[in-house]
Amino acid sequence: MYYYKEELINIIKPDKPDPAAAKVLQETLGGQFGEMRTMMQFFFQSSNFRGKATQYRDLIRGIFLEEIAHVELVQNTINQLLNGSGLSNQPGDGGTDGAPLDEAIKHANPHHYIMGAQSSLPVDAGGNPWNGSWVYDHGNLIANLLNNVNLESTGVLQKTRIYEMSNNQTFRETLGFLIVRDNAHQNAFAKALETLGVDWGKLFPVPNYDINKYPECKKYVDMGFHNAQFNFRLDPTRIAEVFQGQTPSRNGGTLAVVPPPKGFPVPQMPEMPNEHAPGIQDLNA
Amino acid sequence: MYYYKEELINIIKPDKPDPAAAKVLQETLGGQFGEMRTMMQFFFQSSNFRGKATQYRDLIRGIFLEEIAHVELVQNTINQLLNGSGLSNQPGDGGTDGAPLDEAIKHANPHHYIMGAQSSLPVDAGGNPWNGSWVYDHGNLIANLLNNVNLESTGVLQKTRIYEMSNNQTFRETLGFLIVRDNAHQNAFAKALETLGVDWGKLFPVPNYDINKYPECKKYVDMGFHNAQFNFRLDPTRIAEVFQGQTPSRNGGTLAVVPPPKGFPVPQMPEMPNEHAPGIQDLNA
Amino acid sequence: MYYYKEELINIIKPDKPDPAAAKVLQETLGGQFGEMRTMMQFFFQSSNFRGKATQYRDLIRGIFLEEIAHVELVQNTINQLLNGSGLSNQPGDGGTDGAPLDEAIKHANPHHYIMGAQSSLPVDAGGNPWNGSWVYDHGNLIANLLNNVNLESTGVLQKTRIYEMSNNQTFRETLGFLIVRDNAHQNAFAKALETLGVDWGKLFPVPNYDINKYPECKKYVDMGFHNAQFNFRLDPTRIAEVFQGQTPSRNGGTLAVVPPPKGFPVPQMPEMPNEHAPGIQDLNA
Amino acid sequence: MYYYKEELINIIKPDKPDPAAAKVLQETLGGQFGEMRTMMQFFFQSSNFRGKATQYRDLIRGIFLEEIAHVELVQNTINQLLNGSGLSNQPGDGGTDGAPLDEAIKHANPHHYIMGAQSSLPVDAGGNPWNGSWVYDHGNLIANLLNNVNLESTGVLQKTRIYEMSNNQTFRETLGFLIVRDNAHQNAFAKALETLGVDWGKLFPVPNYDINKYPECKKYVDMGFHNAQFNFRLDPTRIAEVFQGQTPSRNGGTLAVVPPPKGFPVPQMPEMPNEHAPGIQDLNA
Amino acid sequence: MYYYKEELINIIKPDKPDPAAAKVLQETLGGQFGEMRTMMQFFFQSSNFRGKATQYRDLIRGIFLEEIAHVELVQNTINQLLNGSGLSNQPGDGGTDGAPLDEAIKHANPHHYIMGAQSSLPVDAGGNPWNGSWVYDHGNLIANLLNNVNLESTGVLQKTRIYEMSNNQTFRETLGFLIVRDNAHQNAFAKALETLGVDWGKLFPVPNYDINKYPECKKYVDMGFHNAQFNFRLDPTRIAEVFQGQTPSRNGGTLAVVPPPKGFPVPQMPEMPNEHAPGIQDLNA
Amino acid sequence: MYYYKEELINIIKPDKPDPAAAKVLQETLGGQFGEMRTMMQFFFQSSNFRGKATQYRDLIRGIFLEEIAHVELVQNTINQLLNGSGLSNQPGDGGTDGAPLDEAIKHANPHHYIMGAQSSLPVDAGGNPWNGSWVYDHGNLIANLLNNVNLESTGVLQKTRIYEMSNNQTFRETLGFLIVRDNAHQNAFAKALETLGVDWGKLFPVPNYDINKYPECKKYVDMGFHNAQFNFRLDPTRIAEVFQGQTPSRNGGTLAVVPPPKGFPVPQMPEMPNEHAPGIQDLNA
Repeated sequence: MYYYKEELINIIKPDKPDPAAAKVLQETLGGQFGEMRTMMQFFFQSSNFRGKATQYRDLIRGIFLEEIAHVELVQNTINQLLNGSGLSNQPGDGGTDGAPLDEAIKHANPHHYIMGAQSSLPVDAGGNPWNGSWVYDHGNLIANLLNNVNLESTGVLQKTRIYEMSNNQTFRETLGFLIVRDNAHQNAFAKALETLGVDWGKLFPVPNYDINKYPECKKYVDMGFHNAQFNFRLDPTRIAEVFQGQTPSRNGGTLAVVPPPKGFPVPQMPEMPNEHAPGIQDLNA
Repeated sequence: MYYYKEELINIIKPDKPDPAAAKVLQETLGGQFGEMRTMMQFFFQSSNFRGKATQYRDLIRGIFLEEIAHVELVQNTINQLLNGSGLSNQPGDGGTDGAPLDEAIKHANPHHYIMGAQSSLPVDAGGNPWNGSWVYDHGNLIANLLNNVNLESTGVLQKTRIYEMSNNQTFRETLGFLIVRDNAHQNAFAKALETLGVDWGKLFPVPNYDINKYPECKKYVDMGFHNAQFNFRLDPTRIAEVFQGQTPSRNGGTLAVVPPPKGFPVPQMPEMPNEHAPGIQDLNA
Repeated sequence: MYYYKEELINIIKPDKPDPAAAKVLQETLGGQFGEMRTMMQFFFQSSNFRGKATQYRDLIRGIFLEEIAHVELVQNTINQLLNGSGLSNQPGDGGTDGAPLDEAIKHANPHHYIMGAQSSLPVDAGGNPWNGSWVYDHGNLIANLLNNVNLESTGVLQKTRIYEMSNNQTFRETLGFLIVRDNAHQNAFAKALETLGVDWGKLFPVPNYDINKYPECKKYVDMGFHNAQFNFRLDPTRIAEVFQGQTPSRNGGTLAVVPPPKGFPVPQMPEMPNEHAPGIQDLNA
Repeated sequence: MYYYKEELINIIKPDKPDPAAAKVLQETLGGQFGEMRTMMQFFFQSSNFRGKATQYRDLIRGIFLEEIAHVELVQNTINQLLNGSGLSNQPGDGGTDGAPLDEAIKHANPHHYIMGAQSSLPVDAGGNPWNGSWVYDHGNLIANLLNNVNLESTGVLQKTRIYEMSNNQTFRETLGFLIVRDNAHQNAFAKALETLGVDWGKLFPVPNYDINKYPECKKYVDMGFHNAQFNFRLDPTRIAEVFQGQTPSRNGGTLAVVPPPKGFPVPQMPEMPNEHAPGIQDLNA
Repeated sequence: MYYYKEELINIIKPDKPDPAAAKVLQETLGGQFGEMRTMMQFFFQSSNFRGKATQYRDLIRGIFLEEIAHVELVQNTINQLLNGSGLSNQPGDGGTDGAPLDEAIKHANPHHYIMGAQSSLPVDAGGNPWNGSWVYDHGNLIANLLNNVNLESTGVLQKTRIYEMSNNQTFRETLGFLIVRDNAHQNAFAKALETLGVDWGKLFPVPNYDINKYPECKKYVDMGFHNAQFNFRLDPTRIAEVFQGQTPSRNGGTLAVVPPPKGFPVPQMPEMPNEHAPGIQDLNA
Repeated sequence: MYYYKEELINIIKPDKPDPAAAKVLQETLGGQFGEMRTMMQFFFQSSNFRGKATQYRDLIRGIFLEEIAHVELVQNTINQLLNGSGLSNQPGDGGTDGAPLDEAIKHANPHHYIMGAQSSLPVDAGGNPWNGSWVYDHGNLIANLLNNVNLESTGVLQKTRIYEMSNNQTFRETLGFLIVRDNAHQNAFAKALETLGVDWGKLFPVPNYDINKYPECKKYVDMGFHNAQFNFRLDPTRIAEVFQGQTPSRNGGTLAVVPPPKGFPVPQMPEMPNEHAPGIQDLNA
C-alpha cells in the first residue's frame, strides 16, 4: 500500500508564465520517455516480477516510487508555467479586446486552455495522449534492464534538448533536477547489469553531458544526487544489494541508498473565475 | 512524496489458472473505467486543483492513493489467474505435443503470453492499450465531481458484469472487494456534491446491486468498507470535512475516515524457465 | 435540419442469439468500410462542398441521409443477435453454475457484455474503436467520387465475406439488404463519374457477386433496390440530374430516384435486470 | 428513418477569415466533448435502449436529432473561418512570393489546408481524430443520464473557454448559440434525473456562466432557447413527459417542447481553383 | 530479396533551413497519403496477390520498389530542412540568450527537436504517428486498383497544396519530382483498369494541375518521367504487359518501362554535438 | 535506390492451414517487436545518421535491407497458414451448412477474412494496427544501439514464446529461421557497443535459448547464420569494420559478412473465387 506526505520532491522556482515551455515540457510528463512512462513501466515490472532474486525487484520498485513524485513535480511545473498566461491580453493591454486567450494560445497546446483551467494533461509535446503500449515488461530481467537503461538514457537526452527551448527558470530548475535523477536511475540499471557480468567501460553517462552547460544540475550533483537512490520504503528493502559500490559512470563516485530528500511545499494555484475554476464560489456564498 | 509498504490491500485467494478470466479482468486494470483510469484521473485532479477549498482536493487525493493499491491488487490477481495456465498441455497431457501454449491461448489475450511471461498488461479486455485521453480533469470542481460519480458508478456496473464471466475464486474475490470499494468512492463523490447542495434521494447506489447476488461482497459490507475511506496520509488531511455524516446511499450508514486496512502478502510468482523469466539462472550459476 | 420517423429501413428478422455473429457484424457498423464511415464521410463531403455543381452535393447528401438509417439498422441487428445470449448458462443448464456469461463470451467481443448491456458499440470486428481518420473529404470532386466508389465496392466485398461467417437469419437478412443498397450507391458514384466522362465498360458491380449465392439479396433486387435511390429530402433536390438513365452496372436497368421504402418497427429490447438495464425499476416502485 | 431540409439551425454570421479560430473550434466539432460525440453518444443510447420507460429514450433521441444539425452548423462555421484565409499572401501582398499559404498555416491546423480544400475535419483542436471510444452507452439509464449531464456541462464549460480565443463574429455567434443549447440539454438530462428523485438544489447551470459576459448568448436566452427542446419528430414522441415543468436550473423558467427553430440558408462556398476544388471545371468545359 | 545502392532517386537541392516546411512535408512522408503508405500498401498487395495474372502483381511491386526510394528521398529532404535550424538563436543573435531552440520550434514539430537530433520522423504534418490501418489490401484486384488510383491522385493533390506553404527550394524540388512520379503511378493504375475495360475519357490527371504553376515539375515532364516506370528488378518482370501503349492521361504520350534514373549522392549530415548526435566523440578520443 | 529479385530469404515449408497460428504470428509481422518495426526503425536510423562514423550507419542499413526480406517472409508464411482455412466447413463436412467461415474464424483474427482474401495484415497478434510511434531514432548512436540490442533480444524472446503456440511446420520453420537471424542481429548491435568499450561478459544471447528445444533452429546454426550478416549492397559498405572478429555471444564463433543466402521461390497463392480474389475472371473471359 502507498502512503503520502504533501511535499514536492523539488522546488517550483517562480518565473513568468511561459505557455510555449509548458507545451514542450509535456513531453517530460506524458511523452514516450516521460515520467508517466517510467512510473508505469517500473510499476508493472515490479508487480509482475518472477523468482527469488528480489533485490532486482526492489531496485525497480524503489525507482517506481520516486517516479510518482516526479510525475507530481512535472504536473506542478507545467501548472506554474501556464498560470496567469492568459491575463496579459485584457482590453487596453495591447491584445484583441475581450479575447484574453488569443495571444496565449499562439504557441501553446490549445487543450491546456480548453480541457482544464490552464493545467497539466496526460499528453506529450505534440498533444498525443499517453499510451499504455509504451510500457514494457518483457518478463525477462535482462531485457527489462536493457530497456530501462535505454529509457533513462533517452530521458536525459530528451531533457537536455527540451532545456534549450526556453530559459524560463521554473522550466529549467525542474529539468535540471530530473536530468540528475535520470542519471542516478541510469546508474542503477547499468549497475544491475554490471552485477550480471557487464563491464560498461566508458559508455555512461549517455548522453555525455557537460555539467557546465546545465548550471541548474550542478547543485544537485554537488549534493551527490546523481549517485544516490532515495528510499521511500516503510519496510525493509534489498535495493542496496544492487545499488552500492562504484558507480558504472565514468564520472565516478560511490552509489548509496539514502533517505528521501527534503520536501518542498506544493504551490497553491489561485482560483481562475474566468475559466470557472473551481467554480463553486456562488454555491458557497 | 510517496511511501510504500509491501502489502496488498486485499487477499489473493488461490484457485486454478483461468486465462479467459485474466483476459476480461484486464478491463478492471487498463479499461476506460478501470483502476489505472481512476488512479490517474484523481492524480491529475489533485495536482491541478485550484483555490482554497482544499477539503475537496484532499478527498480526491485520498482516493487516488487507494487506487494505486487497487492497480497493484488487480495486477497480482491477473498474474495469479495466468500463472501455470500453459502447463497442462505437455506431451502426454492431451494437448498438441510440444506446443504447451496452444490450448492456453484459445480464449486468452495472446499478448499475455508474448509480451511478458504470463503477466498483467496495461490494456483492456479487448487488448486496447490504456489511453491518456480517458483521464478527465475539467478544471471545474462540479464537473469533476459529476465525472467522478459517473466513473465510480460505471466501475461497479462493469465489475458486476465481469463477475458473471467466471466463478473462479481468485477472480471473484478481487472483484467483490473492488465493488464494495467503488461503492465507498461513489459515496464519497456523491457526498461532496451533497455538500454543494444536491439531494440525491434514492438514486444511489448505482447500479442497485443486490448484495446476496455477490456473496464475496458481503464480508466487506459487514466490515463497513462501503462507508469507509482509508487514510493513507502521513500528514494531516481535510478529507473528513467532506467524508462524514449520513451516507448519500439508500443503504444507509455513516461515513467515516479510517486507518488503512490490514495488509496481505504479495504472492511470489515462481520462475518460468520456459518463458525465460527471469532468465538469469545461468548467469548466476 | 434533420427529422425522424421511428421506422427502421428494413426488417429485423428474428432468429437465435449469436454473439459470434454480433462480433463480426460490428465491422459493418464501426469498421473502416462500415456504415458509420459512409455516414460521416458523405456528411463531411456534403457540408464542405465547393462550387455550383450542387447536383453532385445533393447526390452525396442523399446517400448520407440513408446511411444514418443504415447505422440504426445495424445497431438493431447487433442488439438482436446479442439479446438473450447470456441466458443459456444458468445453474442446471450445463454451464458453470452462477457464471451466466462464461459460455457467451467465448467467441464474442467482451465489451458487448461489459460496456453496455449486450448491445452495439462504435467499434469494428476486432474491437478497435471507430476512427475519424477514416473519413475522407479530399476537397476535389473527382478524388471524392473515386474514393466513394471504392468505399461502396469494398462495402459489398466485405459484407459478402462476413455473410459466410454465420447462417443466422437476423444476421443475413440485414447483410443481404445492405449488399443491395451498397450496390445502388456504387452505381450512384460510378454514374457521377460517368457524367464526367468515364465509360466503365463491364467493370461493375465490384465484386461480381452472384445473386443466387445470396438468396436474401434476391427479393431486394426484384424490387429494384439496386438501381434506386431513396429520397429523404423534405425540400427539392437535384439528385436526379445525376442518378438517372442507364445504370453503369453490367447487370443493366435504369436508375431512378424513388420515395423512401416502407418502414419497419423498431424492436423493443426487454429489460435485463441482471445487467442493470435500464436499472430504474426500484426507483419507480 | 431520417429526413432533411436544407436549412441550418442557426445563422453563419460573416466576418474575416480566422484560421487560428477554425483550429480551436474543431474541438467543438470533433473533440471529446464536441458535437460529433454528443450526436453519436445519444444515437447509440437511443438505439440500444432497453425497457418500456421510452419517455427517456425519446428524450435522448430528440437531442440526438438536434445534434446532427449542430455538427452541420459547426462544419459550416469552420468552413467560413477558413474560406479565403490563404489569399492574403499573393506576390506583392507582403508575404513570401508564390507561397500563398505560408502565412495562413502559421497558427492553423495544417490538415485544413492539405486534406481538404480549406474545410472542416473530424478532428479536435489538437488535430487528433475523433474516436469511437469517447461514445458511452453504459446500458444503465442512471449512469447514462449522469454521463450526459456531465457531457453537456463540459460542453458549455469548454465553449466558454474557446470563446476567449478570438473575437471573430462568425466564431462567437456559433459558440453563443451552442452554449445556450447545451444549457437546454443540460436541463433536459438534469430534469430526467429529477424525475428519478434527485433535487439538484442550486447546482445548475454548470458552469455558472454570467450571461452579460457572453453577449451573443443573450438573444437566445431572451427567446427562451435555454429552456426549450426542439421537436424534430415526424411522429409522436413522449419527450414532453420528461421535458416539462420547472427547470432544474437556478436561472428559473419552465421547460417546453417546441417546434424546430426558423432555419437559415447554408452558405455556398466558392470554388477554389488553386486547391483543385471542386476541380471539374475543365472537364465540363 | 532486396538490394541497395547508396544513391538517392533525386537531388537534395540546397537552401536555408525551414523547420515550418519540414513540419508540413512530414505529411508526404508519414501521412495517410504519404510515401510510407504507398510503400507499405503496395508491399502488402504484392505479397498477398492471388492468381496467375501476375502482370498486375509485377506492376504493383514495381511501384513498391520505387516508393522505398521515395521514402528515403523525403527523409533526406526533411533532414536538410531541419539541419542548422537551431543555430540562429545563440546569445547576441537576437533570440533568448542560451535557449538556442526557442525560436526554431515556434512553427515546428517539437518532436523534430526532442525525439531525434533534428531529423525525420514516421509522423504526418499534424504529428500523428503513421498507422497500419491506412494500408489497404482488399484482396480483390479491381478494388485494389481503384484504391491505388485514388491514393496516387490524392498524393498529387496534397503535394500541390503543400507546395504552396513555402518557397524553399529544398522543399519544392522534392515536391516537384514526387508530383511527376505520382502522376506516372496514377497513369499505371489507371492503365491497369483500362486493361480491364475502363475508358477514362478526359478524367486524368487528377487533379488537373497546370505545369506552368509548378516550374520544378517541368524538367521532369520534359524528361518523360510522367509516362515512365523505372524498373528496379534484377530478374524478369511482366510489368510492361500493362505499362505500355497510350497513356490514360489527356496529357498524352506513351507509357514506357525504363531503367532506374541517374542517382544522386546522399548528403552527409554534420555532427550536432549540442544535441548529442552521434555523441560518440569522447568515447573514440 | 532499392533493387529486387523475386526470391524469399527462406523456405515456406508446407503444412495444414492454421488460422490460430496465423493470428499470433502477426505479432512477428506487425507487432511492437516485429519485422515491420525493425525494418522501419533501422531505415530511419540509417537515413537520419549524423557524422563520419559511417561504419555504424552501414551496419544499421545492412540489417534494414535484410528486414525487408523478413517482412516478405512473414507475409508469405501467414498467407500459407490462412490459405484453405475456410474450406473445411462446406455442407456435409460437419460445419454449419453454407457458412464456410464460421468454424475458421473461431480462434482467428476476423480481419484476415474480412479485409483481404485470407492474407496478411499490418497488425499485431491482438489486431492492433502497426504504429509509427514504435520506431525509435534517438539521434544518439549509443542510445540507438542500446535500443536495437533490446529490440533484437525481445524479438528472439517473443518468437520463442510464439513458437510454443502451435506445432505447425510452416509456422515453426519461419520462426526458427528468424530466431537465428535475430540472434545474428543482436550480435551485430552488441558488437557495435563493444567497439565503443563495453564488455558484455556472459550476458548474450538474450534470452539464453537452448538450441535443442528449437530443432528448426539447429540447421541454421550449423550453417553459421547466427554469426553471419548477409550483404545486400550493390556498392561498397563499411559494415565489416564493425561486424568482424569474436562474437559477443557466449556461444562463441567469429562474425563474418557473407553474400545473401540462396533464395527460395515465392509460393503462388491460388485464386479464391468465393472471396472475390482476384475477382477479374469474368472480365477477362
